[in-house]
Amino acid sequence: MRIAELARESGVSATSIKWYVSEGLLPPGERTGYNQTEYGEQHLARLRLIRSLVEVGGLSVAAAKNVLAAADDPAHPFGNTLGIAQASLPTVTHPPSAESVQRIADVARRQGWTFTEDGPGITAAATVLDRYHALGRDDLAATLPAYARAAEVVAEADLDTVTKNLDAGPATAAQTVVVGTVLGDALLAGLRRMAQANESVRRFGHVPGNPS
Amino acid sequence: MRIAELARESGVSATSIKWYVSEGLLPPGERTGYNQTEYGEQHLARLRLIRSLVEVGGLSVAAAKNVLAAADDPAHPFGNTLGIAQASLPTVTHPPSAESVQRIADVARRQGWTFTEDGPGITAAATVLDRYHALGRDDLAATLPAYARAAEVVAEADLDTVTKNLDAGPATAAQTVVVGTVLGDALLAGLRRMAQANESVRRFGHVPGNPS
Repeated sequence: MRIAELARESGVSATSIKWYVSEGLLPPGERTGYNQTEYGEQHLARLRLIRSLVEVGGLSVAAAKNVLAAADDPAHPFGNTLGIAQASLPTVTHPPSAESVQRIADVARRQGWTFTEDGPGITAAATVLDRYHALGRDDLAATLPAYARAAEVVAEADLDTVTKNLDAGPATAAQTVVVGTVLGDALLAGLRRMAQANESVRRFGHVPGNPS
Repeated sequence: MRIAELARESGVSATSIKWYVSEGLLPPGERTGYNQTEYGEQHLARLRLIRSLVEVGGLSVAAAKNVLAAADDPAHPFGNTLGIAQASLPTVTHPPSAESVQRIADVARRQGWTFTEDGPGITAAATVLDRYHALGRDDLAATLPAYARAAEVVAEADLDTVTKNLDAGPATAAQTVVVGTVLGDALLAGLRRMAQANESVRRFGHVPGNPS
């Protein structure tokens, strides 16, 4: 198909399509003549995935590129679910403080988790604790044990999905992890807002902001 | 303090500070002379908050502006925690399908939640289901009941924090919700990656991608 049809089918503008090609997120189409390029179904599928990561998952284009590169790497077959998932975390410019890393490590140990203290997950979590501290809001870290319990419930469901797709080949496994991780964060955020509203009604008798 | 000192103290460049002022996220400093502007502690505190939302929380500047505007609105005192929290969700350009909304509503009803079917939380969650469908991955929605249980655990901890800060005045309550919601999503994402790694080791005997 031509770029105009690809744009119509995917819901992504021709300008954005060209930009994704130039940034390396989308493979180029096939040149079939002067000023004429053909795109196939694989371009459409890839664009739907990019659109999901960026528009619904809220990833920057740079973060989406990292995630797709990890998923595409033939040196990382199914096995590297974790590396792919973790490529979607925001990049940390300063390493977190040793105190915050230890605080997360304590919670993880109490959950009985196996982990290393320099992984992307613990680094991202410890960076949040450092920001709470910089904002004078160390009290917000009181949620940590509950969040860790919730993360374990989510991770068990995530690994159920990965396990069910073990036989579907590396491309499907990689897509499962990319989509499940990034859109899973967005799904969880939406459900968290619903649960907060419900919990507000339960405790205060009304949805805050709508005090009737 | 001058803008150079404000930049040094906050870790935000002078160019970004000027941009945040022009975009309305940060109030302007006080003009004290020709080409000279003074900033105070309140500018520093606000910049730390903006930096947390954008760099650690992963919000776009437009989303951070919405969140801060909701928190600043005097017509929304403490009560509107929910509106503030929900302003941080990605903006949905197309309404989700009725099928996806009903699917989320079914799960919420099974959890016993009070909710309306047009709230931002259910809209965000249903949009994720629509993207799963567009990608041919309806199977990923099997995680929904577990995610809802996890969201409830998180929301109870969130409301504990709000309840503890009830007497601290509307500004603190608003900050609690802004910081707790946006950075809470980031904290949960980091812990989720740690829990996924642990669950992988438990099931497969190794961290995927490191098959030793």
